[in-house]
Amino acid sequence: MNRRMEMICIGNELLIGKTLNTNANWLAGRVTALGGVLKRITTVGDEIDEIKMAVNHALQRRTRFIIITGGLGPTHDDMTLKGVAEALDLELVVDEKALEMVKAKYEAYFKEGRMDRFELTPSRIKMATIPEGAEPLPNPVGTAPGVIIDVKGSLLIALPGVPSEMKAIFEESVKPLILENAGEGLFFEKSIFVDGIMESALAPLIDEVIRENPYVYVKSHPKGEERIPHIEIHFSTLTEDSEVAERRLEKAVNRMLELTAHNR
Amino acid sequence: MNRRMEMICIGNELLIGKTLNTNANWLAGRVTALGGVLKRITTVGDEIDEIKMAVNHALQRRTRFIIITGGLGPTHDDMTLKGVAEALDLELVVDEKALEMVKAKYEAYFKEGRMDRFELTPSRIKMATIPEGAEPLPNPVGTAPGVIIDVKGSLLIALPGVPSEMKAIFEESVKPLILENAGEGLFFEKSIFVDGIMESALAPLIDEVIRENPYVYVKSHPKGEERIPHIEIHFSTLTEDSEVAERRLEKAVNRMLELTAHNR
Repeated sequence: MNRRMEMICIGNELLIGKTLNTNANWLAGRVTALGGVLKRITTVGDEIDEIKMAVNHALQRRTRFIIITGGLGPTHDDMTLKGVAEALDLELVVDEKALEMVKAKYEAYFKEGRMDRFELTPSRIKMATIPEGAEPLPNPVGTAPGVIIDVKGSLLIALPGVPSEMKAIFEESVKPLILENAGEGLFFEKSIFVDGIMESALAPLIDEVIRENPYVYVKSHPKGEERIPHIEIHFSTLTEDSEVAERRLEKAVNRMLELTAHNR
Repeated sequence: MNRRMEMICIGNELLIGKTLNTNANWLAGRVTALGGVLKRITTVGDEIDEIKMAVNHALQRRTRFIIITGGLGPTHDDMTLKGVAEALDLELVVDEKALEMVKAKYEAYFKEGRMDRFELTPSRIKMATIPEGAEPLPNPVGTAPGVIIDVKGSLLIALPGVPSEMKAIFEESVKPLILENAGEGLFFEKSIFVDGIMESALAPLIDEVIRENPYVYVKSHPKGEERIPHIEIHFSTLTEDSEVAERRLEKAVNRMLELTAHNR
């Protein structure tokens, strides 16, 4: 099963330091917990050529899931789908299903008295303009639908950048696809904290634990502020059996604790 | 002047959602303020092949500054410099200057009574093992030096992932290089907030402002929670003259306020 996933985050605000990319962090945690294996996050600005290149490279790497965030809104600099269409050499077309979704949203807003008149302006129709052959994904909390395109074994999924909309579409339409693809393989993790041993002194001990526990990934994260070593050691494993995971992690953690106790 | 910059962030913790990439956000803000133009952030895990590919692609795009964060520490999964060396087809060698830096740190720690004995273990020598021809950058607050390599017009700079160390090396050794390369071009920005107009209704107004203000980049950011539109409109411009920047931003902002006042 090809579990390789990549994320492409689009928006100048991410490149000028205006916005902290909490979307990438949230999605990374979710897809990992669901058994996906995220290999790369690419962040580019609102530029067709950069978007196009990022999509093409992800496809070349035979990525099973390519999740794109941002750039689906009504303004001209929302150009994700234009970049995707160019990368795949597809036309952008007003999709009937997508238009129904957008229309239903604004009709509801009008009925609720939030708009003076109901109009499908070009900016609104833009949100229903998607690459030919793509499927729109309903947006439970906003107006721009998500989009999914099957490209020879790669699923390209575009989600809005507004966090509440991104999360809602992910949970409703993307999560089931990832679970299905992952089979039963899930991610399990555990952390311990070690004080008073420098990372350079921990390094050979970690190597020993890794040698003895080939199915456990072990990584140290220095957390202390310079003077007093305070290091998180993070253990993780992928398996379909939670008892196996438990045993694996416990064995590695115990060995680590044993070695650090001797080296204090 | 080629101002193109890219960032490559290395660490599995970023891909499993364990760590929020605040380094990328901080660096993006800093390099933008200093006149750099950040075009891409690539996040990959602790894997030689992924690091190598990310470095090669950034070089192919003729990037002036490639700033890498993470993977410089003493453990085996700190493999940034190995990936960089492979990408550039260089050998990894123990660098005399880097070794002096590392040695001085541990000698100081020993004298301060923070270590029982002073030893240059393989894990510590690893931090002084850098691609041949590279220059080490002093780390004012930690042990692993940064590294800079000039690759035919691209400056490849590797910084540790620990935020305090990354920031200290950046301010001391990287900032002056970016300022020098930027000449006098700096980034100026301003934001206004508009309430009660949906983004799809704002879109044509923003287009009008953009048409009339070709040197100002305008982007809307929906901030409201679904039901009540609350939208930030962000204006930015690059110029060497702060008065020019002021005039440009003021003109665009005023026009935007005028148009939104008419459309309420």
